[in-house]
Amino acid sequence: MALLDKYAPLAAQYRQLEEAGANPFNVPFDDVLSPTEAIIAGRQTLLLGTNNYLGLTYDPLVIEAANAASTAAGTGTTGSRIANGSYGSHKRLEEALADFYGRKHGMVFSTGYQANLGIISALAGKGDHLLLDADSHASIYDGARLGYAQVTRFRHNSPDDLANRLRRLADEPGDKVIIVEGIYSMLGDTAPLREFAAVKREYGAYLVVDEAHSLGVLGATGRGLAEQAGIEADADFIVGTFSKSLAGVGGFAVTDMEGADILRVVSRPYMFTASLPPANIAATLAALQQLRARPELRADLNANAARLYRGLAQLGFTLGPEPSPVVSAIMPSPEAAFGFWAALLKAGLYTNVSLPPATPKGLALLRSSVSAAHSPAQIDHAINLFADVGKGLGLLPETPALAAAK
Amino acid sequence: MALLDKYAPLAAQYRQLEEAGANPFNVPFDDVLSPTEAIIAGRQTLLLGTNNYLGLTYDPLVIEAANAASTAAGTGTTGSRIANGSYGSHKRLEEALADFYGRKHGMVFSTGYQANLGIISALAGKGDHLLLDADSHASIYDGARLGYAQVTRFRHNSPDDLANRLRRLADEPGDKVIIVEGIYSMLGDTAPLREFAAVKREYGAYLVVDEAHSLGVLGATGRGLAEQAGIEADADFIVGTFSKSLAGVGGFAVTDMEGADILRVVSRPYMFTASLPPANIAATLAALQQLRARPELRADLNANAARLYRGLAQLGFTLGPEPSPVVSAIMPSPEAAFGFWAALLKAGLYTNVSLPPATPKGLALLRSSVSAAHSPAQIDHAINLFADVGKGLGLLPETPALAAAK
Repeated sequence: MALLDKYAPLAAQYRQLEEAGANPFNVPFDDVLSPTEAIIAGRQTLLLGTNNYLGLTYDPLVIEAANAASTAAGTGTTGSRIANGSYGSHKRLEEALADFYGRKHGMVFSTGYQANLGIISALAGKGDHLLLDADSHASIYDGARLGYAQVTRFRHNSPDDLANRLRRLADEPGDKVIIVEGIYSMLGDTAPLREFAAVKREYGAYLVVDEAHSLGVLGATGRGLAEQAGIEADADFIVGTFSKSLAGVGGFAVTDMEGADILRVVSRPYMFTASLPPANIAATLAALQQLRARPELRADLNANAARLYRGLAQLGFTLGPEPSPVVSAIMPSPEAAFGFWAALLKAGLYTNVSLPPATPKGLALLRSSVSAAHSPAQIDHAINLFADVGKGLGLLPETPALAAAK
Repeated sequence: MALLDKYAPLAAQYRQLEEAGANPFNVPFDDVLSPTEAIIAGRQTLLLGTNNYLGLTYDPLVIEAANAASTAAGTGTTGSRIANGSYGSHKRLEEALADFYGRKHGMVFSTGYQANLGIISALAGKGDHLLLDADSHASIYDGARLGYAQVTRFRHNSPDDLANRLRRLADEPGDKVIIVEGIYSMLGDTAPLREFAAVKREYGAYLVVDEAHSLGVLGATGRGLAEQAGIEADADFIVGTFSKSLAGVGGFAVTDMEGADILRVVSRPYMFTASLPPANIAATLAALQQLRARPELRADLNANAARLYRGLAQLGFTLGPEPSPVVSAIMPSPEAAFGFWAALLKAGLYTNVSLPPATPKGLALLRSSVSAAHSPAQIDHAINLFADVGKGLGLLPETPALAAAK
């Protein structure tokens, strides 16, 4: 059969969305105006579906650092970190990340996806065991698939289930490596990290925490959930991304583990890819400095998150279990999510639709996310649009106060 | 055992190189001055080990495009292509690549590594067959591992072996997808692409050509080996990278295949990663325009390649089978390669050491690569340094003219 025929059923659905002119997976931003506004389909649109948590993509110091780096060192390194692609700036960013996290080693990857692929596939080898939260991000699953360890999934956010599975593996040889995320990107829920750390200690396992969505969001200094939960000493590796709070692209890992530098010559997604260009490295370094110097960004972000969560809950939407920069409303069906999303976009508000397999439990989500750069008025405007559109589509409970009180 | 103990033997070797102060896999470029010069360990060094084939990293128009894009659209998109990460510029670059290759579809990935992962893992599914050249780049092997097709390796550059293997698979259900590269990055040899295309047609297989090292290098308009060999119609997909001739970071695929857009919602390394920031996209688009507008860059590059190949051959070095921007000298041992490399660096010349598993047949390679930006005098200077160091280390044949005539 023809090569792409295996995707025919999905292709039919995709074509329908395209033909309806409302495909949430293919929305070109004609022009981007600020961290919170873009021109989409010719009209100015409020952005409530990015991961620009600290709004630093337009920070003048970050842009200036990027531009100065391209001018001085060129637009690309044209080589991998193990050949000609380790510039002084790559080392400086690794040192800055290690310093921020108070760790000995920092390692920079060309994407956050590759950070997870590179760390997970290299840490756990043949005969080792990976224990993954069932709701893990695709990059964690793909890292597990790339490596040769045996993979065991445990129930999302369930330390009990993790403990049960480790108990069953107790007599098996090989190291056990647990991977969890700080904030899960679909429903915005956090991991019960103190409990996971206790299980880790009890079974002599290793713990990797992916702070992709929690770096710059949680913790007294913004290091993420491990800091907030007070279990950083139990997190053998922290991995994260530059493409959310840090306003760029790329990923990292930090650790105190003795000899971790060997990962630089065994981790294939680290070795066999071009390193990040000077501008990306310089922008990330500048954004990290801003993150550290301006805790008020984190405060603004979390205030906006709480405002949106409260507003949508009061309207009666079923949301994730806790306020977070990611606020997802559970829709009754994919069709309802598509319809709601398209109507919001028409009204000038950009959100995301998230569907299985990206979402847990087969949920259809209308996903919003906030930025420190949103004004309270923008958040309130967004809540009002949710109310208007929800009423128009009959997707809002009749008696919101009652529904919210449930 | 402790998590990293599995790498202990390698770690010991790595430590030795570090302690000797001559680890070719960890060379920070303190400062980069131009496409051909950097400050390494405090001294000005001639670069003969990058993939900056057209020297465009310092092109003023490329830098200007990058800087203008960051200023206008920010330093990052903070989202994936299927959410908030498809800017107008991503679409324009995809159209420009499709136009350059004369294809209907263009698709941009965040790294070249992820382009191979994303195309290979999505094209060939469960029940399909991937046929990989034994010397394929790590990203091709990793793409095969990420997917669910059955993997068959054939002898490097052997259309006969490929035909034998396809014959044995003839009665098996599933599609057959062949992956080859334009120029192989370790020895600089090209694929016998006309013969591979004939085999492909005979067995009704699909053909993917990775032009990572041949884009901007080969072909009447620089499209790569498929263009030069006149078999573009047989190449169902062309994949490539932005981090070599195009002076940036990222990767792409182009195709005429009907319905190829479905890959945008099934290819995990495309979907689950942040899209490239505006500056990277703008720089690549500008570099592509330069590549098209200035064929003299390709002519200069190939003249430099021929000059270096001839010079090293005349000194008696055993090189890859044909002149190419990658010119590798086969060393008698890894130790000889390390020693030669370190002595060249001390003399002010940066090259690469390549060892198994990156190299074919267990070879230890002293790998050089040239740029259009090198002057003939720089190439001659490099050849002289090879001669001096080779003599000093006893790694040069006594009678070079004779050795070259073998």
